[in-house]
Amino acid sequence: MTPGSAALGHVRDRVDRALQDFVGQQRGVLLAAGDDLRLGAESIAGLLAGGKRLRPAFCYWGWRGAGGPDCPQIINAAAALELLHAGALIHDDLMDASDTRRGQPSLHRQFEARHAARGWYGSAEAFGMGVAILLGDLLICWTDEMFHASGLPGDALRRGRPVLDRMRTEVFAGQYLDLLGQATGDETVAGALRVVEFKTAKYTIERPLHLGAALASAGPGPASPDGGRIEGGAGGTAGSDGTLAAAYTAYGLPLGIAFQLRDDILGVFGDPAQTGKPAGDDVREGKRTVLLAIARDRATAAQAQVIDRYLGDPLLDEAGTAEVRAAITGTGAVAECERMIGRHVGEAIGALEGAPVAGEAKEALAELAVAATARDG
Amino acid sequence: MTPGSAALGHVRDRVDRALQDFVGQQRGVLLAAGDDLRLGAESIAGLLAGGKRLRPAFCYWGWRGAGGPDCPQIINAAAALELLHAGALIHDDLMDASDTRRGQPSLHRQFEARHAARGWYGSAEAFGMGVAILLGDLLICWTDEMFHASGLPGDALRRGRPVLDRMRTEVFAGQYLDLLGQATGDETVAGALRVVEFKTAKYTIERPLHLGAALASAGPGPASPDGGRIEGGAGGTAGSDGTLAAAYTAYGLPLGIAFQLRDDILGVFGDPAQTGKPAGDDVREGKRTVLLAIARDRATAAQAQVIDRYLGDPLLDEAGTAEVRAAITGTGAVAECERMIGRHVGEAIGALEGAPVAGEAKEALAELAVAATARDG
Repeated sequence: MTPGSAALGHVRDRVDRALQDFVGQQRGVLLAAGDDLRLGAESIAGLLAGGKRLRPAFCYWGWRGAGGPDCPQIINAAAALELLHAGALIHDDLMDASDTRRGQPSLHRQFEARHAARGWYGSAEAFGMGVAILLGDLLICWTDEMFHASGLPGDALRRGRPVLDRMRTEVFAGQYLDLLGQATGDETVAGALRVVEFKTAKYTIERPLHLGAALASAGPGPASPDGGRIEGGAGGTAGSDGTLAAAYTAYGLPLGIAFQLRDDILGVFGDPAQTGKPAGDDVREGKRTVLLAIARDRATAAQAQVIDRYLGDPLLDEAGTAEVRAAITGTGAVAECERMIGRHVGEAIGALEGAPVAGEAKEALAELAVAATARDG
Repeated sequence: MTPGSAALGHVRDRVDRALQDFVGQQRGVLLAAGDDLRLGAESIAGLLAGGKRLRPAFCYWGWRGAGGPDCPQIINAAAALELLHAGALIHDDLMDASDTRRGQPSLHRQFEARHAARGWYGSAEAFGMGVAILLGDLLICWTDEMFHASGLPGDALRRGRPVLDRMRTEVFAGQYLDLLGQATGDETVAGALRVVEFKTAKYTIERPLHLGAALASAGPGPASPDGGRIEGGAGGTAGSDGTLAAAYTAYGLPLGIAFQLRDDILGVFGDPAQTGKPAGDDVREGKRTVLLAIARDRATAAQAQVIDRYLGDPLLDEAGTAEVRAAITGTGAVAECERMIGRHVGEAIGALEGAPVAGEAKEALAELAVAATARDG
């Protein structure tokens, strides 16, 4: 039991059941189109069985913190975020050419292997890619279906809608910036942190909290590009709502950075049994993380040489992983990341003090901050 | 001026403007994440500038036929379907490895070329693929944003929502069946027609009509897998609504098949200036169309040999295109497809007679049936 497991567990089991129910219904729709869709439906159900349900948890506690009552409707709406996340992961694994996800072959690899094993026509790789694109699209679309069928009143959904919209535009924009930064060779810590802000901090923590608050009528819509508020996103009176949303931002953004830094460390040093990915996978995939940007900044010529030799090497083995780990640790980048995690988690929890967040939720969010960034993930 | 251009033109110009306005707003959101997103925003705007707006037109006339008034709100909701379509096209071109779309390089090729020209790091192909996945995802998500921000009342959106949901699940299911059929070598006419039902007939015509009807309060939700109706999808009284929806199905499904058959013929015989694709592109991509399934069914050994030699050949040139065209025509498949188009268009128009469709809309739908399947597309 990690600290915070109560705050997560309170939501997780019910989110799991809501997802099972929803996917069970969709299975019927898919099979009506053709029995051949059975395998696709099963792969989706398998992928959705895993995951920590962090985004639903933040959405739920964002709602509770705004005074929303515990009820099945908010669980359904929060669970919808997990469908978006699963779709984004399928597409992400395809873009990164990742072989594994949650301890299983990634979805495109599953279908590639099935194609190869059965000796089907055409390219197995193209088949795996096509299925992964389509099933990812399907899951992304189901987000809206589950959200609007959550049972929450129309007014609540109308308030939440622009936050969900903004969250999705931001996460895809963040991934685009990441891709572009990789291509142009932006190795700066600042560049990596900007990607983390959009791709992780807003997407995983800040916006789910804002969504919960907006659904509970206390949340504002996301800020519009010119700094104003999107019409229709604001519920209730501006005063206290703005304060709550600002508190969620002050908590969510630093926590999101800490969460990503923990993920960066696990991506290089994590135990495969814990991460569901092979050891050193971020190095193998050449990911442009904050940890690696800091390591490069601080590396001696010899350390830089080791990092450059293995980064993005698809054949990276155990010995190479050990060597690159030693080089990164030697730069002091891991210790620096741990310090940053501690500082950012402290900042996040500090932001809760004096914030207009309802009692039980405040405690749960403090627990979640620790749980989401713990060494044993 | 093709026949039916009045019914299409009435909608198209206003849909164009609604899309421009929406994409202009989103541009602001994207640029707030980073100026690097400018190119992505421009590519999206460029892609959205083209297209016949068939799905918005059917949605609009589905609404009008159900007694809905002409108003900007229904134009906005109908235009949202064009965002879904653009996202699906980007992903489709990637899966098919298509080089062109609407007379321009396909989106993944645009970004691949940019990467190569600038000598960026990593694989240009992987970069093009990644950007295409992300921008397609973005467009698919924007569908919901534009739909819910259309200005239609909450009740109308609540009635339309399950139809939009069903339409999206069906189109991705249809594409999945297509991919699987290609891999398993299903060359039957029946198999190709089943894909057409989901991927084209429901998606392009039947569901947009149902969506318009549901928004206007006269439409039922889509049938649930067990043949019942989805709760919340039905507006008004069941009697007349069921009749209207049934009429739209009786019109939409045969018309959808005719529309796809015309597309099949254009994919082999069409003029690039008209199709926006190179001559013979369906042959080059090895598409498993109804036209080709019929041609194979009827081919002599010599004709089959020619078809098999060129089908899926990425290097297919002008001489090869001419040869394969002659073989396909020689089987009588083109004449058979033309007969099927005529019969299905007749069936569609016949279904309008006696249907409870409001006057002007009935005439527009008859015009659209001809326009959507005309030889000059």
